[in-house]
Amino acid sequence: MSLRTTGPIAATVYRGDSIENTHLAHVAVVDADGRLLASFGDPSRVTLARSAAKPAQALAVLETGALERFGFDEADLALMCASHSSEPRHIERTRHMLAKAHASEADLRCGGHAPLSDAVYVDWLKRDFKPGGVCSNCSGKHAGMLAGAQSIGAAIAGYERPEHPLQVRVKHTVADVCDLPDDAVQWATDGCNLPTPAFPLDRLARLFAKLAGAQDEVSKEAAATPRTKALARIYRAMTTYPELVAGEGRFCTQLMQAFDGGLVGKVGADGSYAIGVRASAQTERAGARGALGIAVKIEDGNVGILYAVVAELLALLDIGTLEQRTKLAAFHRPKMLNTMGIETSRLTFSVTLKRSTEHGVQ
Amino acid sequence: MSLRTTGPIAATVYRGDSIENTHLAHVAVVDADGRLLASFGDPSRVTLARSAAKPAQALAVLETGALERFGFDEADLALMCASHSSEPRHIERTRHMLAKAHASEADLRCGGHAPLSDAVYVDWLKRDFKPGGVCSNCSGKHAGMLAGAQSIGAAIAGYERPEHPLQVRVKHTVADVCDLPDDAVQWATDGCNLPTPAFPLDRLARLFAKLAGAQDEVSKEAAATPRTKALARIYRAMTTYPELVAGEGRFCTQLMQAFDGGLVGKVGADGSYAIGVRASAQTERAGARGALGIAVKIEDGNVGILYAVVAELLALLDIGTLEQRTKLAAFHRPKMLNTMGIETSRLTFSVTLKRSTEHGVQ
Repeated sequence: MSLRTTGPIAATVYRGDSIENTHLAHVAVVDADGRLLASFGDPSRVTLARSAAKPAQALAVLETGALERFGFDEADLALMCASHSSEPRHIERTRHMLAKAHASEADLRCGGHAPLSDAVYVDWLKRDFKPGGVCSNCSGKHAGMLAGAQSIGAAIAGYERPEHPLQVRVKHTVADVCDLPDDAVQWATDGCNLPTPAFPLDRLARLFAKLAGAQDEVSKEAAATPRTKALARIYRAMTTYPELVAGEGRFCTQLMQAFDGGLVGKVGADGSYAIGVRASAQTERAGARGALGIAVKIEDGNVGILYAVVAELLALLDIGTLEQRTKLAAFHRPKMLNTMGIETSRLTFSVTLKRSTEHGVQ
Repeated sequence: MSLRTTGPIAATVYRGDSIENTHLAHVAVVDADGRLLASFGDPSRVTLARSAAKPAQALAVLETGALERFGFDEADLALMCASHSSEPRHIERTRHMLAKAHASEADLRCGGHAPLSDAVYVDWLKRDFKPGGVCSNCSGKHAGMLAGAQSIGAAIAGYERPEHPLQVRVKHTVADVCDLPDDAVQWATDGCNLPTPAFPLDRLARLFAKLAGAQDEVSKEAAATPRTKALARIYRAMTTYPELVAGEGRFCTQLMQAFDGGLVGKVGADGSYAIGVRASAQTERAGARGALGIAVKIEDGNVGILYAVVAELLALLDIGTLEQRTKLAAFHRPKMLNTMGIETSRLTFSVTLKRSTEHGVQ
């Protein structure tokens, strides 16, 4: 395994006139056909997509028929794709999903952890609240997996193990939707204890272009394939319930709210992000045939820098309106204040997009 | 200003067989004469030393005669060099220092912030405690500055401003002890609102080699210069009271406790670290004439990775005993567990030390 996954500098933090930190990144911009439209660094960097892969894992569960069988609604599907903030609405929905799936918190194999929301963390500490599995930011994914296991007639015990029939199915679906043979995806163990895939960054962008492209397609014609309908359903769930995909004040939520159905976005731990943008004059200008996908990996895993770079890329690609992008200003150009409220530092971008000529796109 | 401060990969985090994150670093190893003995990346990377520069700032205050004038003891001097955890012992000592300096919390211009210690944070939240300036991890430095300002007959108001007579003096002292002309140091504003220096990484290593070398010198002969005696006094303060320099469970504290007076170490925010090692057969084998200094900057500012790399460098340089270094195992080879307690990731090192031939050292 080569150690040379280093890349070009995407963002630099200055304190005064001195460089404090630099952050390397890789970016892939593709369309739903997988054509590489533009890139920064190595668009084929093998990347652990982590929670940015949740829509593909949800697809596998959805394709078992589990949603219909257990009465999961669109909001439940959104939570299956979430890295939520463990707010009461997220925990309550998880409990309802478990009840619908004839399962309980004791069946979950994700464990609890300190929440992604500072406000929730403070609340828990003040109440001496000890989080269990329903509080995991991945609890919706796990509840979905418990339903999926039953839906294919498998035991729920061991649902998190790589060899469990559900995970075997998930692994095939994830590779398939990324247009990869099964053995081209590497699998590791996620923070929440489920198998988590690694594949080239442009395949993550392609997955998200497919989500947006599927919604474009079903909007135009009823004769879409079941796979396309399933992808469109995931797109609609995430964009209709952005507050369930992350939470109060979080980037994914604010991004999808700002773009109001025009794009789907999802963070993965350790600095990965993916966006799918529905076809528009803007995606066409970027060279896409139809919908467009963007995937980013910050080489050092810094999530604050990730959000800033993602917002910068939306500006570079001229996605949405200036007004929509301005709603992300706090992430795009974060105020870097010291303990006296004085701005001491500033973030500058050197991320650019090199248009690909691979497919005749200039 | 060049954007190309990128460097070689020092550490890589794997999840399963896939590379999750990579971290670049620069390292300088010097002796007190400033001879570069070994390096990794760019040993002259201009680096915001942040709190790793505190011993040089404390030197400037010490040289005003403030410690004698206001009755500050060695433990107070240690706190002046600290990025402490805001534990009760740190806050109480700050209050005593302020009283000795005829000043109060209202005079501090550092502000409060969430503490560096999780345990202290939980305690504060449970008590609804709102931290003031005495709780800043830099409160000892600020209390020292209030004493220093009075010691040179300046007003305490505005002591934090770059143009205040005390800061003018600090700026000269910092440059001087790093063997740099005043205009070779860049200054910015620190997290705690004081001016903070940026200079080449090997100068930070040299500062710490001088601290250790000064203690070597005063141990042998009484005829040392006032500057040497002052540097030795700082060395003794930090190594005698390591629990005041950081706090319970923190790296600086555990490092200095493990090496029991044999070295001094200090972290700076955003991934800088410096160590001074007293002369020994080991520093001689590393090519040092006398004491040895090590300085590290993690390019992306990751502090967990910084501690691991520092511990790895001590092993590469064979500093101390294996038993001493093993006391840092939790920092050197941190267990990377998921929310079910399963080890999912591992840290590998690619940091090496290229011996310098600049001065005939092989």
